[in-house]
Amino acid sequence: MKRYGMVIGVKPDKIDEYKRLHAAVWPDVLATLSRNGVQNFSIFLKEPENLLFGYFEYHGQNYSEAAQRISECPKTREWLAVTDPCQEPMAHREPGEWWAMMPSVFHMD
Amino acid sequence: MKRYGMVIGVKPDKIDEYKRLHAAVWPDVLATLSRNGVQNFSIFLKEPENLLFGYFEYHGQNYSEAAQRISECPKTREWLAVTDPCQEPMAHREPGEWWAMMPSVFHMD
Repeated sequence: MKRYGMVIGVKPDKIDEYKRLHAAVWPDVLATLSRNGVQNFSIFLKEPENLLFGYFEYHGQNYSEAAQRISECPKTREWLAVTDPCQEPMAHREPGEWWAMMPSVFHMD
Repeated sequence: MKRYGMVIGVKPDKIDEYKRLHAAVWPDVLATLSRNGVQNFSIFLKEPENLLFGYFEYHGQNYSEAAQRISECPKTREWLAVTDPCQEPMAHREPGEWWAMMPSVFHMD
């Protein structure tokens, strides 16, 4: 199992919509994540800086392949077409990233 | 069990020291956290914004009491006297906070 942390901005005028959407994420989207090894996934919000921090655990052998499969799920694409416009990616992120992945500097079981 | 997300800045010239310290956190500090119900604690770093994102799970009945006990541990106080100067608290945080706690907007098991 590997733990991932990631960060992205949220548009101030879209925070309510983002919360509303994430209070009832589409079951197909959750199923695709689960089926591809994503577990214990949380998103936290910091206002007024308007940052979203994501944490999840990946149970599997190859996260980049899993992420690719997740991104190819049609329902997930529909979901992201609704949620991505709420977000504002970090100016500094790796090529190809939407959420900016963060290296871990500490872990305690 | 309750999940917590929190954020704080890190001083750019202290990032190496912060990483070095957190690669070998003092055993007494870890033991105090564990004894007070803190588990699965990770810290992630975002550069060049120099933000630290903390995630942990609290197993217990009263986190504020647990946090109080943790803060009263002499070894933890010594530890924080070394690590706090590496950090730059968020300008916007609740009274009494060092790390700024973040509300959860999503969770999937």
